[in-house]
Amino acid sequence: MAVDVGQLLAGLDRGERRALARLLTVVEDGRPEQLREIVAATYPRTGRARVIGVTGSPGVGKSTLTDAIAGALRARERSVAVLAVDPSSPFSGGALLGDRVRMQGHHADPDVFIRSMASRGHLGGLSFATPQAVLLLDAAGFDDVVVETVGVGQSEVEVAATADITLVAIAPGMGDSVQAAKAGILEVADVFVINKADHPGAGKLESELRGMLEMGHATAGEDDEPGWWPPILRTVAVRGEGIPQLMDELERHASFLADSGEGDRRVRARAVHTIREIALEQLRLRFARLDVGDDPLLEALASKVANRDLDPYTAADEVLAALEGGEA
Amino acid sequence: MAVDVGQLLAGLDRGERRALARLLTVVEDGRPEQLREIVAATYPRTGRARVIGVTGSPGVGKSTLTDAIAGALRARERSVAVLAVDPSSPFSGGALLGDRVRMQGHHADPDVFIRSMASRGHLGGLSFATPQAVLLLDAAGFDDVVVETVGVGQSEVEVAATADITLVAIAPGMGDSVQAAKAGILEVADVFVINKADHPGAGKLESELRGMLEMGHATAGEDDEPGWWPPILRTVAVRGEGIPQLMDELERHASFLADSGEGDRRVRARAVHTIREIALEQLRLRFARLDVGDDPLLEALASKVANRDLDPYTAADEVLAALEGGEA
Repeated sequence: MAVDVGQLLAGLDRGERRALARLLTVVEDGRPEQLREIVAATYPRTGRARVIGVTGSPGVGKSTLTDAIAGALRARERSVAVLAVDPSSPFSGGALLGDRVRMQGHHADPDVFIRSMASRGHLGGLSFATPQAVLLLDAAGFDDVVVETVGVGQSEVEVAATADITLVAIAPGMGDSVQAAKAGILEVADVFVINKADHPGAGKLESELRGMLEMGHATAGEDDEPGWWPPILRTVAVRGEGIPQLMDELERHASFLADSGEGDRRVRARAVHTIREIALEQLRLRFARLDVGDDPLLEALASKVANRDLDPYTAADEVLAALEGGEA
Repeated sequence: MAVDVGQLLAGLDRGERRALARLLTVVEDGRPEQLREIVAATYPRTGRARVIGVTGSPGVGKSTLTDAIAGALRARERSVAVLAVDPSSPFSGGALLGDRVRMQGHHADPDVFIRSMASRGHLGGLSFATPQAVLLLDAAGFDDVVVETVGVGQSEVEVAATADITLVAIAPGMGDSVQAAKAGILEVADVFVINKADHPGAGKLESELRGMLEMGHATAGEDDEPGWWPPILRTVAVRGEGIPQLMDELERHASFLADSGEGDRRVRARAVHTIREIALEQLRLRFARLDVGDDPLLEALASKVANRDLDPYTAADEVLAALEGGEA
C-alpha cells in the first residue's frame, strides 16, 4: 500500500499508462495528502482536454455510444480517455468484465485509455473523485476525456459541472417515456441522443422530448436563452449509425463555446465547482475525525440530542458557530 | 407547492397516514426551513422506535426479506414502517410499481406503512435525507422502522449509522462470491442473512463468509471485541423459511444492546452522525449559494484556478480559512 506518488508522477511525465492507472487508483482511494500532491503537481498542465459527458438511464446503451464516440474521435486522430463512472457498482479499476470486453476493440491502441471508477475512500463519493480523475486524464495529455455516468441521484448534474459538453442519451422501449426521465437530465443536456433509434417508438420519444423542451423553453424566458438550442440526434450506436452527425454537433458546440464566451464561463464555473467540492471534502474529513471524547462541545451536544433535550438542527448550528469562531 | 407544514404536523399528531406521506415528501424535497420545522416539532417524540437496517447487493432479495420481516413483526403485534431507499432509482413516493405490488399484502393494515425514497432536493442526497425520514417515522409512533437500502457507495455505512441493528443480506448464485462483497458490508453487519438458501452454493457461501469473519476477528484484536458475534442465518424469504430464527436473533440483539450499554453507545453515535450530517448540509447549502459575482474572494480564486495560476486545493484552503474567520 506504500505508493510512491512522486515516482508515479514521474512515470506520468514519461507518458506511462501504468503510472496513470495507478494514480487513478490513488485518486479513488482518496487519501487527502496524496490527492493534494497529485493535483498540485498536475494542475498547471490541465485545461487542454475537451471533456465530454455522456449520461442517461441504465439500459439506453451508454457504453456502446461511448465506444462509438471514442472510435470516431480516434478516426479523427484525437487521443481519447474514457472514464466510466457507475455509482451503483462497487467495482472499479478494470475489474469489470465489461471493461475487458470494451478494451478489446482498442487494446492495441496507445491513444485510447478506458477506465471504470467507483467511490472507495471518499466521504464525498464520486462527486468528489470524478473531477479529480478528469484533471489527471487531462494532465496526461488526452485530447478528449469522455466521462460516462449513469444518470442517478445527482450524478448527471455533477458530470455536467465537470464537462465542456454533456450528451444525454435516451432510448425507446425502456418501459418509461421521457416523462419519467428526471428533470435534471433535461436541464443539463447540450445534445440529446436517441440511441437504439431503430427500435419501435423512437419517433414518439423524439416528439415527446421536443414537446418537453419547447415547454421548458417557453417558461424559461428570454434572459435564460443561452444561445444554444440542444439538438436531438438519432443513433444506432451498435452499428455506428448517426455517429458522424454526432461528431458534427460536437464540433459545432465547440465553436459555439469558443465564439460565445460560454466556454470561458464554463471553465470558471468548473473552477468554482472544484474549489467547493474540495472545501466540502476537507470539512467532511474534519467532521469525520470529530468524535465524542475528542471534542467537549460535540460530546455535550450529542448527549443533549441523544436525550431529546435538544434537536439536532440547533446542535448543528452550535457546531457551525464554533467552527466559524475557529474553535472546532 | 405551498405546503403548510404546520397543518401536516397537526395531521401527524392525529395519526393521519396521508399527513405522514406528505411530510416524507417534504423531507425528500429538502427545503431547509421546512425540514428544520419538522425536526424541531417531532424530535422530542423520537427515540422510541427500533430501527432495523437491511442492506445487500442488488438481487439478493432484500425486498422479499423486508416484507417477510414486516409480516413477522406484525404477527407479533408490532406496528411497522418500511423505508425503501434506492440510490440508483430516481423514483420515489410510491411511484414504483414495486411499491404498489408490495402494498397489496398489507394494504388493509393501518399498522404497516411502506414508502420508497429517492434523493431529490438534497445536495447531500440520501445520506442526509434518510436519517430525517427515519426520525419522522419514529415520531409517527411505529414500533419498528425497517430501512432497506442497496449496498452501494457509502449507503451501507450510512444505514448502519442510523440503525439499531443492521442485517446484511447475501445470496448464492449472484455470480460473485463473498470476496466480491464490499468490505464495508461485512463491517456493518450485526446479523448476516443468506437469503435464497435453497439455491445451490448456499453452503459454500456460508463457509466463505465464516472464513472471512474469522480472519477479520483474528486481526481485530481483543480491544475491538464488541461482545456480539454476528450470527449467520439462512432464509428463503419468499417462503418465510428462516424468518422465525431471524426474529429470535432480533430479540437477542435487542437484549444485548440493552444489557451491554452498546445500545446507549449507538444512540449517542447516531446523535453525532445526525448533527454532523445536518452541519454538512448547511455548509453545502452555503457553498451552493456562493457564486462568482456574489463573493469577491471566490471570484478571485476561481479566476486564478481557471487560469491555472493556482491549484484548487490551495484555493479551497483559502475559502475555508475565510469561513473560519467568519468572512465567508
